[in-house]
Amino acid sequence: MINQNAYALGANRSCIRDLFEYGRQRAAIVGEEKVYDYSLGNPSIPSPKEVNEAVRAILSDTDSLKVHGYTSAVGDYETRKAISDDLNARYGVSTQPEEFFLGCGAAPELTAVFRALAVPGGEVLTIAPYFPEYKPFAEEAGLSFRVVPPDVPDFQICLEAVEKRITPHTQAVLINSPNNPSGVVYTRETLTWLSQVLVRKSQEYGHPIYIVSDEPYRELAYGVEVPFVPELYRNTVICYSYSKSLSLPGERIGYVYVPRQAEDSQMLYAAIAGAARASGHVCAPSLWQKVIARCAHLRPDLDSYDRNRKTLYEGLTAQGYEMAKPDGAFYLFIKAPGGDANEFSQRAKEKDLLVVPGDGFGCPGYFRICYCVSYEKIVGSLPIFGELIREYQEKV
Amino acid sequence: MINQNAYALGANRSCIRDLFEYGRQRAAIVGEEKVYDYSLGNPSIPSPKEVNEAVRAILSDTDSLKVHGYTSAVGDYETRKAISDDLNARYGVSTQPEEFFLGCGAAPELTAVFRALAVPGGEVLTIAPYFPEYKPFAEEAGLSFRVVPPDVPDFQICLEAVEKRITPHTQAVLINSPNNPSGVVYTRETLTWLSQVLVRKSQEYGHPIYIVSDEPYRELAYGVEVPFVPELYRNTVICYSYSKSLSLPGERIGYVYVPRQAEDSQMLYAAIAGAARASGHVCAPSLWQKVIARCAHLRPDLDSYDRNRKTLYEGLTAQGYEMAKPDGAFYLFIKAPGGDANEFSQRAKEKDLLVVPGDGFGCPGYFRICYCVSYEKIVGSLPIFGELIREYQEKV
Repeated sequence: MINQNAYALGANRSCIRDLFEYGRQRAAIVGEEKVYDYSLGNPSIPSPKEVNEAVRAILSDTDSLKVHGYTSAVGDYETRKAISDDLNARYGVSTQPEEFFLGCGAAPELTAVFRALAVPGGEVLTIAPYFPEYKPFAEEAGLSFRVVPPDVPDFQICLEAVEKRITPHTQAVLINSPNNPSGVVYTRETLTWLSQVLVRKSQEYGHPIYIVSDEPYRELAYGVEVPFVPELYRNTVICYSYSKSLSLPGERIGYVYVPRQAEDSQMLYAAIAGAARASGHVCAPSLWQKVIARCAHLRPDLDSYDRNRKTLYEGLTAQGYEMAKPDGAFYLFIKAPGGDANEFSQRAKEKDLLVVPGDGFGCPGYFRICYCVSYEKIVGSLPIFGELIREYQEKV
Repeated sequence: MINQNAYALGANRSCIRDLFEYGRQRAAIVGEEKVYDYSLGNPSIPSPKEVNEAVRAILSDTDSLKVHGYTSAVGDYETRKAISDDLNARYGVSTQPEEFFLGCGAAPELTAVFRALAVPGGEVLTIAPYFPEYKPFAEEAGLSFRVVPPDVPDFQICLEAVEKRITPHTQAVLINSPNNPSGVVYTRETLTWLSQVLVRKSQEYGHPIYIVSDEPYRELAYGVEVPFVPELYRNTVICYSYSKSLSLPGERIGYVYVPRQAEDSQMLYAAIAGAARASGHVCAPSLWQKVIARCAHLRPDLDSYDRNRKTLYEGLTAQGYEMAKPDGAFYLFIKAPGGDANEFSQRAKEKDLLVVPGDGFGCPGYFRICYCVSYEKIVGSLPIFGELIREYQEKV
């Protein structure tokens, strides 16, 4: 008498979590410093100091009932204004506070958007490689989950493959750039082409096909442009989180942006609010709303991620590993020597090096490295990667 | 191409929110002090000072990455241990940290429990009067929502009516004590009888019928016992929130308690975790988890609520209003003079006195007062209540 889908989702931990737990156990046995755990995307640079300063200031200068009280379901106006102002300043756009809905991070925001778009037979299309939780989010919301195969080896988007997979039931194309797991940033060119395909297909089928842009890594880009997607395609809904940009993954604060210019935008915004309400959203955490009102303009200090990225990318490439240029986020997505990423991951695990096989990301034969770890770990891991690839090279 | 249920939920604000917004507008016109707004249950006593002190201490003594980082989906062990220890000390029970799942307040916790219990044809039964959001929570999770009529005038539970409405498809009976909107606390006698009915019916139908006990008001009781329901009925799941007990409604922190002794408890716990995962639960806000680890033992200072309660109860009873004894929460639920609560609410509104008609709570003919307002407002409103009832008395 228990819902079996829910049970299966709760009982079967993700492969990433399993690896992470294994890493904790190994660290207890062989010592923290000997385990190279690249499994989990938990930020390793602390929040900008202004964040904790803002918390302290709010506790001092704002009435406690207001700090911790209910806000409206859509979120404090001041916070939405601060976010809107920041985006307008950065991208030269003219967003309005009323277009934002404050949520508890990208995950519940995506489920609310999917639920809002869940009509009978509705489908959401995403691009491999993709974040594995997208599948349960879409399916439990009531949408079919379809995947466009990866655009190897660059991990941009194969537009022909997108066009072929769009059906009259396609409600949205879900993208994630900078991408987890590839670390790739979709170029302006890629997104412009995608936009053109979607305009054409929307016309053909007589209804909007939204882009749902999952952007927790938007601020994590290393010298390349991350285009503001609604500028390129008007029917774009953004799900944003401060988890990575302000290193606040546990605090659950972000927003949904529904541009007024999007088709049926008012109805869509209301449906997102209604879907959130139905799953128990009351408001985003109130103190964190107030922090964002003061900190929406802050950018992360990416130096340590960038040093890790370069050291790994250059080190591994020199050893013979192949991967797309990682311009964003904190991931590398690497072709498994020998072609079997599960086997590679298993061998690496035997050397206390933890990497995630790409199968769950819709991309077998690759493995993911999450480089938000200490620089010492990066340097220490390179010889192990070297040993591993040599074993494969010697086999051949 | 938008989900119409979600749209309807998002577009149609609750009657309570409408009244509240009206109150804000009137206050801007006639002055804050002239509007007597009893519409919304936003706590009016600040959090115990230890709460903000704990926030400051955590920011000083704990590594920022740990404070704001992801926790496990079920929540920090230390927090679950603190909650478990506190309950054990208070009720002489022996809960275990592993029985707790930290959630973002009672609303999403209820939706996860409902989803975990959503099997084809499944029903949840609640007792009128009840919190109006229960209906969308249950229905959107996939359960039919059934209501037991109110036990007038005491607002305990009419057990015969419960028994009559339990079917082979009843998955759970949802209770809320201290009750919103009645302010009534279910007695040990009532709960023992309910337990006996459910034991009998579970046996008859060959599957557990859970009690889902929604307990945001558990700590708000004025000199009466609030029994620990799992002691009286083993198949009880508690959804708890610190919204009212620590005056943190905006911060979204609480827990689900699934006792090990409950039937299929491990499967149910996993299904609740899975249902939460499917709707985007990653973890409860991390800083607030750490605050609860230090503050789970705190109790609210109820003096000001109690003074409001007594003043209103005595004042209104003396004027001829009829209501059940309000032993808990911060609500009075009053029989509308003349019998039509919507008419009464409308007349009151014309005098800038805002009360919520009981229809949405499944109990027409009554209206709700939420007395978490200043004492001055309580005193100032009494003459208006007096005028209103006299108008009805003169009509007769």
